[in-house]
Amino acid sequence: MPTRLDARRSVLAAKKRLGLRWDMIATALGRSTEWSTSAMLGQQTLTPEQATAAGDLLELDAGTVEALTLSPERGSAAVDPSDPLVYRLGEVVQVYGSTVSELVREEFGDGIVSAIDFELTMERVADPKGDRVVITLNGKFLPYRVW
Amino acid sequence: MPTRLDARRSVLAAKKRLGLRWDMIATALGRSTEWSTSAMLGQQTLTPEQATAAGDLLELDAGTVEALTLSPERGSAAVDPSDPLVYRLGEVVQVYGSTVSELVREEFGDGIVSAIDFELTMERVADPKGDRVVITLNGKFLPYRVW
Amino acid sequence: MPTRLDARRSVLAAKKRLGLRWDMIATALGRSTEWSTSAMLGQQTLTPEQATAAGDLLELDAGTVEALTLSPERGSAAVDPSDPLVYRLGEVVQVYGSTVSELVREEFGDGIVSAIDFELTMERVADPKGDRVVITLNGKFLPYRVW
Amino acid sequence: MPTRLDARRSVLAAKKRLGLRWDMIATALGRSTEWSTSAMLGQQTLTPEQATAAGDLLELDAGTVEALTLSPERGSAAVDPSDPLVYRLGEVVQVYGSTVSELVREEFGDGIVSAIDFELTMERVADPKGDRVVITLNGKFLPYRVW
Amino acid sequence: MPTRLDARRSVLAAKKRLGLRWDMIATALGRSTEWSTSAMLGQQTLTPEQATAAGDLLELDAGTVEALTLSPERGSAAVDPSDPLVYRLGEVVQVYGSTVSELVREEFGDGIVSAIDFELTMERVADPKGDRVVITLNGKFLPYRVW
Amino acid sequence: MPTRLDARRSVLAAKKRLGLRWDMIATALGRSTEWSTSAMLGQQTLTPEQATAAGDLLELDAGTVEALTLSPERGSAAVDPSDPLVYRLGEVVQVYGSTVSELVREEFGDGIVSAIDFELTMERVADPKGDRVVITLNGKFLPYRVW
Amino acid sequence: MPTRLDARRSVLAAKKRLGLRWDMIATALGRSTEWSTSAMLGQQTLTPEQATAAGDLLELDAGTVEALTLSPERGSAAVDPSDPLVYRLGEVVQVYGSTVSELVREEFGDGIVSAIDFELTMERVADPKGDRVVITLNGKFLPYRVW
Amino acid sequence: MPTRLDARRSVLAAKKRLGLRWDMIATALGRSTEWSTSAMLGQQTLTPEQATAAGDLLELDAGTVEALTLSPERGSAAVDPSDPLVYRLGEVVQVYGSTVSELVREEFGDGIVSAIDFELTMERVADPKGDRVVITLNGKFLPYRVW
Amino acid sequence: MPTRLDARRSVLAAKKRLGLRWDMIATALGRSTEWSTSAMLGQQTLTPEQATAAGDLLELDAGTVEALTLSPERGSAAVDPSDPLVYRLGEVVQVYGSTVSELVREEFGDGIVSAIDFELTMERVADPKGDRVVITLNGKFLPYRVW
Amino acid sequence: MPTRLDARRSVLAAKKRLGLRWDMIATALGRSTEWSTSAMLGQQTLTPEQATAAGDLLELDAGTVEALTLSPERGSAAVDPSDPLVYRLGEVVQVYGSTVSELVREEFGDGIVSAIDFELTMERVADPKGDRVVITLNGKFLPYRVW
Repeated sequence: MPTRLDARRSVLAAKKRLGLRWDMIATALGRSTEWSTSAMLGQQTLTPEQATAAGDLLELDAGTVEALTLSPERGSAAVDPSDPLVYRLGEVVQVYGSTVSELVREEFGDGIVSAIDFELTMERVADPKGDRVVITLNGKFLPYRVW
Repeated sequence: MPTRLDARRSVLAAKKRLGLRWDMIATALGRSTEWSTSAMLGQQTLTPEQATAAGDLLELDAGTVEALTLSPERGSAAVDPSDPLVYRLGEVVQVYGSTVSELVREEFGDGIVSAIDFELTMERVADPKGDRVVITLNGKFLPYRVW
Repeated sequence: MPTRLDARRSVLAAKKRLGLRWDMIATALGRSTEWSTSAMLGQQTLTPEQATAAGDLLELDAGTVEALTLSPERGSAAVDPSDPLVYRLGEVVQVYGSTVSELVREEFGDGIVSAIDFELTMERVADPKGDRVVITLNGKFLPYRVW
Repeated sequence: MPTRLDARRSVLAAKKRLGLRWDMIATALGRSTEWSTSAMLGQQTLTPEQATAAGDLLELDAGTVEALTLSPERGSAAVDPSDPLVYRLGEVVQVYGSTVSELVREEFGDGIVSAIDFELTMERVADPKGDRVVITLNGKFLPYRVW
Repeated sequence: MPTRLDARRSVLAAKKRLGLRWDMIATALGRSTEWSTSAMLGQQTLTPEQATAAGDLLELDAGTVEALTLSPERGSAAVDPSDPLVYRLGEVVQVYGSTVSELVREEFGDGIVSAIDFELTMERVADPKGDRVVITLNGKFLPYRVW
Repeated sequence: MPTRLDARRSVLAAKKRLGLRWDMIATALGRSTEWSTSAMLGQQTLTPEQATAAGDLLELDAGTVEALTLSPERGSAAVDPSDPLVYRLGEVVQVYGSTVSELVREEFGDGIVSAIDFELTMERVADPKGDRVVITLNGKFLPYRVW
Repeated sequence: MPTRLDARRSVLAAKKRLGLRWDMIATALGRSTEWSTSAMLGQQTLTPEQATAAGDLLELDAGTVEALTLSPERGSAAVDPSDPLVYRLGEVVQVYGSTVSELVREEFGDGIVSAIDFELTMERVADPKGDRVVITLNGKFLPYRVW
Repeated sequence: MPTRLDARRSVLAAKKRLGLRWDMIATALGRSTEWSTSAMLGQQTLTPEQATAAGDLLELDAGTVEALTLSPERGSAAVDPSDPLVYRLGEVVQVYGSTVSELVREEFGDGIVSAIDFELTMERVADPKGDRVVITLNGKFLPYRVW
Repeated sequence: MPTRLDARRSVLAAKKRLGLRWDMIATALGRSTEWSTSAMLGQQTLTPEQATAAGDLLELDAGTVEALTLSPERGSAAVDPSDPLVYRLGEVVQVYGSTVSELVREEFGDGIVSAIDFELTMERVADPKGDRVVITLNGKFLPYRVW
Repeated sequence: MPTRLDARRSVLAAKKRLGLRWDMIATALGRSTEWSTSAMLGQQTLTPEQATAAGDLLELDAGTVEALTLSPERGSAAVDPSDPLVYRLGEVVQVYGSTVSELVREEFGDGIVSAIDFELTMERVADPKGDRVVITLNGKFLPYRVW
């Protein structure tokens, strides 16, 4: 049986061959474009129904559809941190991580921003000097428990 | 002369002693709270006027004020990636990096999201199930040049 | 002003000199022994009142008491992972991490065990073949958000 | 002949296909659910009888049954430490490792908590604010020998 | 379907077999020799037309031509940094990186040299003491945004 | 006696205090701006005469002048590779390293580009869409010796 | 107060100055030469009586004597693994580790050799071709617990 | 042709299938059990005669017998240092490495313990509190040459 | 087509099967034994004529002969630095690197020893106390260019 | 008391101030220039007589003279492997390590070249195309012991 990462490759090839966009796949899954992309790339859990809907749209074989329901892959194999686009996101964490830390602590007290009870959106914002990418990270604040 | 990182420690100690908030410091600098925090922590360039204004508010000595005008520190010493709050931001890049990469490429073509022509904002959003932290990354899209 | 890690060293030296136990310090802080130990070692946030109470018991100077109220240190400097005692805890994660992962997923669905909304206790259990250390990790289950 | 890690993949696929739970496999092995899960994932030694019992329940082929009796895999390949669920367990070691170290030393003297003469249990604890995962680490205290 | 790195190997083998030079391939692509080499090695985006043109010249099979239109590979797998020729380029960054940093900051202010809005050329310069390689890096200056 | 890296800090502080530019220091040394910057930052060998000339211009104390004649520091301490400006230079090596390798090999045969018999220049090139930084690497080709 | 590693340096300097041998120090501590050396270097727990006895023999100041009773340092700072003598011990683990693993498993079943309930001795064995160092590792076998 | 590590897997599988012990294989090779185990696992040079003798006993095919005469594999692939049993041997080097270093230097002068002119033995020692593993490292002392 | 490293394996197998020595292969190539060994192992460029001559002697198939003319592999995959023999060469660099650095600088001025315009020879020197290996590194001195 | 590395800095400063050459220091020590340089840089054991002779020549204070008799520093702190001159020596090991390994094994059988029973010499060889550095590594062959 193919793995989640094999399924990812099949999804990308099929999407390219069929000329689909991520929002069309999202419609089939009944979820947001961002979550759906993440799921098809292997980072979210898909129900059998969602896997089947995606499989129908993308004309995937049965093994790949089943592989889409395997446990998600969210470890270091999920992305190449040295890819220039991804690296810049990591650089934002490096350069602004202590700023976020200070501001969260001042506003909320001691705790963290959840990466689990979390949503991400990406939007294009037109700008005469060059369009901009706006990425929104929306995570629940979790205070450290004291006992 | 103290370094930028020494100045950061003095700023944090003075801010605590005087009971100031980051937005008060931002007002003195004439910039947003996020940029101002980042600057006082050492990751942005401050003009002598801004350093003096901050020094007046925070009652810093002359050496520290001068140190605030040194080159910013944006390398790996800027933040500890193993701090739990910062780690979760890095985990977002690990888990959602390929999603952002796919969506940017589909929408804009081959390029990256600038971490230089870039703004970051942090907001608290009330939620009955627990308030949320919304962090917005806003970077110019830069297409790869072809020659 | 001393750092949180300097304060830790002073606390350990004073505790040794005065012949105190961690549960006595916990009583002064009004918290559990485990949390109190963690706080005195620098991994939790102490209120000024708690810092003062600890300072009175441990006969700490004013600078150290103030340093106890600094931001906690929870990054990689908090512990030496190559220390034999700590290493074995890490080995448990290596050997049993996939087991915990499987069982949590089966019982709760896709998510993680919080290390923030989290309590740890340590207990001695008498055993004729050699007493045992029982460490309990108690964390809230956090499901991955779908959007 | 397949390896222990190949056998693990076959076990997970068969368990999914047959809709079994880990406690059913544990019953077949005559051991606790936690140990049995760990063994089927490749981290414990299985007797030929246990391998056969598991093979019958999971309808495994003879090669996979034999592979289940190979030496366990407990090195770094046993788990991905960057998986978010596993990472949080590792973060507990980072944040609370020195606390455990202090408390063990105070209570027992100089030594370690065995990761070999060791049991792990996982339990779900209902909580109106969100159910909790309670993981118990139970290891024999081993004092450093003096000679 | 072959990957971009598989396509790279096929391109190199075909180029060798057919006795072609990079500038001939560049002519087929209608781009500079440097960009074209980089694209054929997998680090730039090729249009289907460019891939076909290259495929015709290099007598590549259809699968390889299609693979040439896959997303570029620009992460750490793109090059072996320990190869002696590549290492020396990296050494230049090590030895002269702070010099470039100082001079850019003095001339342009706080910002970076883009590696995206970027061109690279390589030229042979005859020299009686041994010919020289002149590599020109030409990147847009990007100032840090202040907000 | 101060080290080369101590001398570097003193040079940068004096340059700032006196409002000098690197080309003025270069004039005092009788060398190019790029080499002179590199030398003052600690990566080149200065003669006692050059150190004295720089010391006179920068009003350095005798110990610092002597430290300028110490062996250069060209190891990994010479620069922070995670600084965003420096990182992009390293990324150029990652993305274009194999291209340079191919083109050098085709043009010159088997060998490397010297980083020792080497010159670097930096120039500002005006551009209506944003000025550009042009960095030229000029190194002697060294063929592998066959024996 | 000095640390355990500071105390180690003082012990080595005093031992050198006074011309003592490790077995004389061992006699003062009432333990074997190997354990005593290890304790004076900081890797074992010394009682106040032992620290005092060592301090009397080595003419250490009170602060150093007290530092000898601090928690032992057994993490990666205890030794430099790249020192040639130490490296060869590590190489033995690399070359013969799987052999020991196989033989222990065959003889004892699934378990490990304790590094805690452990003794080490070193002996000189005369040999006409060059004297030999015989190091004996003596650790309790610990079987993996099954539950 | 299989590699030395392939041959190792075949040897382990055959040994298991035939129910052989390492000392029986040692008898066939005419060497000690420890050396023979090490050789069959790939870390020693076997003569064609020894390879044939082992092949006869273990019923290995001709390719595997030939592979046993390949150069030994003694690099980092020879063992997994994160395996719990092997890790404890490495921990012994970490904790006691400086002790061995001190004692060797005191007894022999400046030099090292050879890991080449070296023998290792493993023995079981009965003990009412639990049997013990005694591993003996026996290496020639090599003094640093002075010239 | 096989890679250079595949060709290396074929060369070693053929050399073993045919009972050849490296100097016989060197004769076929018309080069020194050291260079020839290095070339057959994949670290030098072979002409088609040399590849054919080696292929005739070693009875290699056409694909392997062609693979011998591929670009050399000189990156970190060329050798395993943890192999005991290779490690000791690296240790020589660690222990004597600063000595070579001092002596070269004193004798030649600021520069390096070329590893490209470089020859290596290996010789056996008989010695009644045990024969010795004499390895000669012969590299052109390259002075740092000043501009 | 200063450390061996402190003594090294003092030696280098004094040598520079007094205008001495390494061979003059070697004469004072009664050893070769290479060994003497290595010893003064901290990598060899000096007798008190040698330390005194060096101290007299270099006008070192008593503490530094004593520090010269401390244990040598041969671990990774002995040299910076990223220094360009040292790096090239390491590159030689990378590129030619497998060649040396093959030739040693063919000539001597299974074993290593000692880095302990070892001598290093450096010589200048005049060459019209640029003088050359000849470094000779001379180590005893040590065969693997079989038992």
